[in-house]
Parts: sequence; C-alpha cells; structure tokens
Amino acid sequence: MPTPTPAPLLRACNINVTRDGYGAGENQRLERPFGDGIDPGVLFSWAGATASWPNRTEPGGSRGLDDYFTRDWGRNIGAEIMGANKFSPHRGPWQNHDWQGWWGDEPPFHTPVFVMTHHLRPSFTLSDTTFHFTDADPATVLARAFEAADGKDVRLGGGPSTIREFLDAHLVDTLHVAVSPVDLGAGSRLWKSPEELLDRFHMDVVPSPSGVTHHLFWRR
Amino acid sequence: MPTPTPAPLLRACNINVTRDGYGAGENQRLERPFGDGIDPGVLFSWAGATASWPNRTEPGGSRGLDDYFTRDWGRNIGAEIMGANKFSPHRGPWQNHDWQGWWGDEPPFHTPVFVMTHHLRPSFTLSDTTFHFTDADPATVLARAFEAADGKDVRLGGGPSTIREFLDAHLVDTLHVAVSPVDLGAGSRLWKSPEELLDRFHMDVVPSPSGVTHHLFWRR
Repeated sequence: MPTPTPAPLLRACNINVTRDGYGAGENQRLERPFGDGIDPGVLFSWAGATASWPNRTEPGGSRGLDDYFTRDWGRNIGAEIMGANKFSPHRGPWQNHDWQGWWGDEPPFHTPVFVMTHHLRPSFTLSDTTFHFTDADPATVLARAFEAADGKDVRLGGGPSTIREFLDAHLVDTLHVAVSPVDLGAGSRLWKSPEELLDRFHMDVVPSPSGVTHHLFWRR
Repeated sequence: MPTPTPAPLLRACNINVTRDGYGAGENQRLERPFGDGIDPGVLFSWAGATASWPNRTEPGGSRGLDDYFTRDWGRNIGAEIMGANKFSPHRGPWQNHDWQGWWGDEPPFHTPVFVMTHHLRPSFTLSDTTFHFTDADPATVLARAFEAADGKDVRLGGGPSTIREFLDAHLVDTLHVAVSPVDLGAGSRLWKSPEELLDRFHMDVVPSPSGVTHHLFWRR
C-alpha cells in the first residue's frame, strides 16, 4: 500500500522573534517596516545566509541546519495567510490601492495569499501570487485557505499578533520560531516565554551554530 | 527576477552510523540485513518516530527536529544511487532474478534507482520505481543518474562503502549522517571520525532530543 496522503496542516514557519518574544518594535512604518529599536538584519541574518533563502539571487549560501528551515518554507504549501501589518505599513482605510506589498513584481509566495484586514479591497495578482483581502474570523479564513491550497498545507505568515490569534483559536498544527539573542522591550509580541505553549504543543529547542535558537512546536 | 534555478546536487540523506562510524556489522545476510552486533532499530528509531518517515502507514509521529530530516529525504529527488549491499543480501553472481529488493511491491523511492554492482541483470520496475544495474565508475553512474533525474537532485542512498567511494571521488555535495550513541567495533565503516571530512566540507553538529546527533556537511 502507498503511504496514506497526510491531512493538510496549518504551519507557521521561519517566524523570527527576540529573546523577549517580540517580532517587531513599536511604530512600524514604511521607512522602518519592523518598527523602532529592532534591526531586521539581526533577526533574519541566519536565514539570509542559507542556500535556500527565497530572496537569494546569487548562488552560494550554507546548507547546514538553518538551510533545512529555509528550504522547508515553501515545501507543500498551497496558500498563505498573513496579517495586515505584514502586508503593508498603512494603518486605517486605504486612500488608494497603489500599495501592492513589499515584495515587488515577483513575490516569493507563488500561491494565493489571504490578508486579514478590516479594510477590504479587490484581489490582485502579481506573477503567480494572488492577494485576497478578508475581514472574516480565523477559522473561516483558514477554511478558505485550505480550499485554495487544494490538498496542500497552508502557511501562517505572521506577524506575531496574527499568529497569536490563530494559536488562541487552536488552529495551528506546527510552529517554527527562530529566537535571536537580543532583547527589545516593547512592540508586537508573540509570547512572554515559549513555555506558554507547552500545554498544547510538544517543543524541540535546537540551538543553531548561527546564533539563533530554533523552537519547533507540534500539536500534542 | 525569479530566483535562478539551483544546480542539481548529489545528496546523501538520513545515513545512520554508530558512534564509532559503522553503518552495518559484519556478515550482512537475509536474516540480519545490517549484520552482526547491530540492532537496526537502535540506529533508525529516531526516524521511525517521525510523522514523515517514508514507511509510516498510520497517522501520527513527531514533527520536531528529526522530522525535518525525514521529510527532506524525498524533496526534489529525481533518482537514487545505491550500493549492491543495500539492494540485496546476496554476494557474488545472481543464481536467478527472483530477488527484487527489500521493499515489497511499493518501494519508497518513486524514481529510477541505480544499483552499483559487478553482477549485472536486466532493469525491472515495481510501481513507480525502476531499478537499473550498472558496473560503471561513480562519475559515470552519477552522470546517468543526473540525466534520469531531469533537473532534480540525486540521492546517494548508501551503504557506507558506496558513500565513501563517492566522497573519495569528490562527487558528494551534501551529506546528512545521524550518529547513534552506541559502538560496534567491526563492520562496514563510513569514517573513523567525522572530522576526516573537514578539509572539504563545512559541518554542523546538531544533537537531537531523540538521542542521535545529526552531522550536516556541505561543500566548502
């Protein structure tokens, strides 16, 4: 018998936070997408150094532990869900629809993307990525995303408050968080401590030679 | 611009050895495929516990660190190369061609497989896996496998002496070895110490909560 097809999962992958649990500082804006007090280079450098970093444009890069995480990011993913603050630095109603995300004409998603926002706007497509906008609750958005993913997994793209919302609704199957050895003190927080999730998840804690500590959660 | 398509790699994945470097004991035979003195369950249990273990027939399993290795085993693989001792317990010329591998009617490879042997026999197909037999040198076999893989990577499946042959010919791009905390003392050996490879490879050493220590190598 062939191995049975596994049920699709909701996976949050390559989420980056500080040692004190922040994924972004205060006052996120166009010039500082990750807000005050945080150098995104510090949070992301482990991923940028790998061969499979989706934004890599030149050959090279490491193929050790960290590369397993960057190359798993797109594996078997059929849709992404993201929060409004990941999609754009704007807050409040759209003045126009010129903003099409941070990612240029070739976004790295290559699937439908569902943006959770109270400020709806028409769907649009860039290359092989289509952005949809929805103000539905997490379970409803997830059902739409699974339908769009057509049997593949759905990636939960962040930021921290969006992940928290799905965690609180018990919808997350697996979660990978890379913790950087810096503190921030204020901003958008994923957790006070990873131990908060141990009532519902198994956890592996894996220090990487790059300096981050990977935290891997899967449902109990 | 889309990310350029990376060049295909020769990858040895999920190779299991003892702390003293043995992948099989002496006297490998039908009743003891891994030879004397070795309990394959001890070497492989880390993999068998994961959700993505290719031979898993029931839902469940862990999705922590070890699962990244089992689920990467088939990712982007277009062909496998294996040694004669992995394919069969027979030594010397074939008496007949009844033996079709250890894996039943649905082998887990799902690609062409090139078996390196001095005792040639006709190719045959089981489900979506075709076994070919070749007595060519490693570089020639690899060229055939890359052609069969059609742009995807080629997996080097072992055993230890076959991997050693390809390492000595400088053909391996990445190598993942899980080292179990047991000693064997005799048999088919991959290395005396992983440090032997450091002149040509980077190495990450990653202890797993399951008890094995993953060793990840990629070309310098």
